Amino acid sequence: MSRQGFITQGAITVKNRQIAYVGRKDSLPKIKAEKVIDARGKIALPGLINCHTHVAMTLFRGLAEDKPLDNWLEKSIWPLEANLTWEDVYWGTLLGCVEMIKTGTTCFADMYFYEDAVAKAVEETGLRAVLAQGVIGANVASLGKETLKQSFFFVKRFNGSANGRINAWFGPHAVYSCNVELLKEVRRLASEKNVGIQIHLAESLEHSKKVQEKHGISEIRLLEKIGFLGSDVLAAHCVFLSEEDMQLLRKYNVKVAHNPVANSKFGLAISPVKELLDRGVCVGLGTDGPASNNSLDLFESMKFTALLQKQHYEDARVMKTWEVVEVATLGGAKALKLKNVIGSLEVGKRADIILIDFDKPHLKPFHNVYANIVYSAKGSDVDTVIVDGRILMEQGELKTVDEEKVMREAEKRAFNLTTR
Amino acid sequence: MSRQGFITQGAITVKNRQIAYVGRKDSLPKIKAEKVIDARGKIALPGLINCHTHVAMTLFRGLAEDKPLDNWLEKSIWPLEANLTWEDVYWGTLLGCVEMIKTGTTCFADMYFYEDAVAKAVEETGLRAVLAQGVIGANVASLGKETLKQSFFFVKRFNGSANGRINAWFGPHAVYSCNVELLKEVRRLASEKNVGIQIHLAESLEHSKKVQEKHGISEIRLLEKIGFLGSDVLAAHCVFLSEEDMQLLRKYNVKVAHNPVANSKFGLAISPVKELLDRGVCVGLGTDGPASNNSLDLFESMKFTALLQKQHYEDARVMKTWEVVEVATLGGAKALKLKNVIGSLEVGKRADIILIDFDKPHLKPFHNVYANIVYSAKGSDVDTVIVDGRILMEQGELKTVDEEKVMREAEKRAFNLTTR
Repeated sequence: MSRQGFITQGAITVKNRQIAYVGRKDSLPKIKAEKVIDARGKIALPGLINCHTHVAMTLFRGLAEDKPLDNWLEKSIWPLEANLTWEDVYWGTLLGCVEMIKTGTTCFADMYFYEDAVAKAVEETGLRAVLAQGVIGANVASLGKETLKQSFFFVKRFNGSANGRINAWFGPHAVYSCNVELLKEVRRLASEKNVGIQIHLAESLEHSKKVQEKHGISEIRLLEKIGFLGSDVLAAHCVFLSEEDMQLLRKYNVKVAHNPVANSKFGLAISPVKELLDRGVCVGLGTDGPASNNSLDLFESMKFTALLQKQHYEDARVMKTWEVVEVATLGGAKALKLKNVIGSLEVGKRADIILIDFDKPHLKPFHNVYANIVYSAKGSDVDTVIVDGRILMEQGELKTVDEEKVMREAEKRAFNLTTR
Repeated sequence: MSRQGFITQGAITVKNRQIAYVGRKDSLPKIKAEKVIDARGKIALPGLINCHTHVAMTLFRGLAEDKPLDNWLEKSIWPLEANLTWEDVYWGTLLGCVEMIKTGTTCFADMYFYEDAVAKAVEETGLRAVLAQGVIGANVASLGKETLKQSFFFVKRFNGSANGRINAWFGPHAVYSCNVELLKEVRRLASEKNVGIQIHLAESLEHSKKVQEKHGISEIRLLEKIGFLGSDVLAAHCVFLSEEDMQLLRKYNVKVAHNPVANSKFGLAISPVKELLDRGVCVGLGTDGPASNNSLDLFESMKFTALLQKQHYEDARVMKTWEVVEVATLGGAKALKLKNVIGSLEVGKRADIILIDFDKPHLKPFHNVYANIVYSAKGSDVDTVIVDGRILMEQGELKTVDEEKVMREAEKRAFNLTTR
């Protein structure tokens, strides 16, 4: 599928984990295929890319509702997280991986604790991911040092692992939760290791104000001042932005992970995605953690992105359907420094492909493929998922993970957590 | 399921189309059931109620995207509608009925042309509906007269039809598209016939301004002045409201159909649902027509309702999950003058019941039933649908309509329409 077009009667071939042919079926070179998938009535799309989540938080789904961000974090989530074990994170992640595969997400960016447990789940399920062990410690220097050390070892051990499907990055939690020295050290190490950085940025007015009060400038200006900004920085949220902030994001080619559902659920503002795109800032799409969404379905986030932007700018012409699909695929690939690897169906890219079953009542009639994808399709319409040339789901059936077992074990751990 | 609670290990019995028992299974009186449905792992909910749609517009789904409301209506939709036939409306409605049943909607309010074709589809599929043949004619008196005559005959013929599942109302399109004389005549006839009135109200700033310029007062004030307002009026949209407008809606107990997805898609504002509820105004949920949404899935609209209200008021505590479920069920029943008939699972009410399959990865863990329904469940999780005691879908299989045939025929007609 090209930027605004699509191929009818198409065919795709995969060889050595890569896309070897994309085009019309009648131009397909003669090959002897090991495996043929009949995709009649289906749409092939690059796998969707989730640029910001904390997958293991599936365990907390529904646990703390209708709370403002600060209260939610401090009163509900952090106390629960203090009791998390490696096994909890592993099973919570598996539960999220199942949900992502079933809804057509083939790659995700994650930042959490016990990130090696997340890596294990990614390795086993066959997904692709950009993972970061969280770094935190604004006031406690020893905590900052310790978490940075863990983050560093995580990068060393996991970058390039799972046959190249895992990239390991640094994950400083946010400006307000890390001090300047810690952020500088993260920056230095990321450049040294040539890996990216995930960070929460300009998410809430409260946090932005704290930084403004302490340093007299915005979070983004502060990051510029300490030499932190760069094209390898993936900034999640970016809800509260001044014109200067947007210009800085553009100048340093910082990538933005847009999380419309979580931002709204916390009663925050709407990220000015249209203005970011107008200025040439790269935007990818995220769900945020399943406890603040409470879903990992990017189809829903695509629809919500379009609706919120139109609503925010009071203009139905804003955020066209093909733009939304681009943000959720190629935009995500660029945001994760994977634009040469995934994000579009092009020869030479890794075969991360999903098939959507379009032969359903709610996807009829077929007037407009992009409108049907963004406004009418649901995660549950995803039929087949391929990552790195490997089939993870075929006709709705998972191939790499025992769904039943994961549901039971994750739920048992989730219940157990609340009574510890 | 009571207002904020729910029953575990529950059982429901149905006799003579009505709910005969709701409670714990161990208190169930001994009965000999004709048919038993094992609902283990499932949640029973009153069928969802769609308070505003134009179902046959499934045929236009995806046809005219990214357009402001006026342009969309005048340049795209009205020219297409001029070519619609009775058969088009019938098949388009059937397609929408299939989608509604599959996503747990058991009752809907519809306003369109050839409404008798809609009634036929409702009769055949087994759904419940409040239908209105549209009345229109601001400047052409003869058109107003003619459409009112049709609307009148529709009420006479169809009110109480389909074994009582169809209520027929009057459907004046909007204040700006009907003149004052026509609206007065509608009001008189509705009171005479003791049926309700569906109307578009305060949907767009443009239309509101037109009325303001012509009459010097708001749409709602104008309707009050001519004696139109009453507890039998269902006003769709109500996006642009002054404090006085809200007070008038409350004073006359006018019902509001909230359409968050369509309002956002047209770049309109967010309806102040929280403020309406605070003032005691009855609010139901609508999808609007499938060409301006482009879905009939009320689970999606429930989630958007919560998110948009929280976002609008910048407060995560606004619009709690149980409130959203109430709006989509009992709120809808009240809005359609059916509060003694449907909208909750209570003994003596009609058996309009849906079962949601909660044994799915994205609905685990089960910490909070209302949060899981509003934020995590999808229309595709609906497993079984019962209307008026009759099973319309069981374990995902439709019982009253040939889904395959409807898809083919509706799509053929939709394609044909664009080339007429």
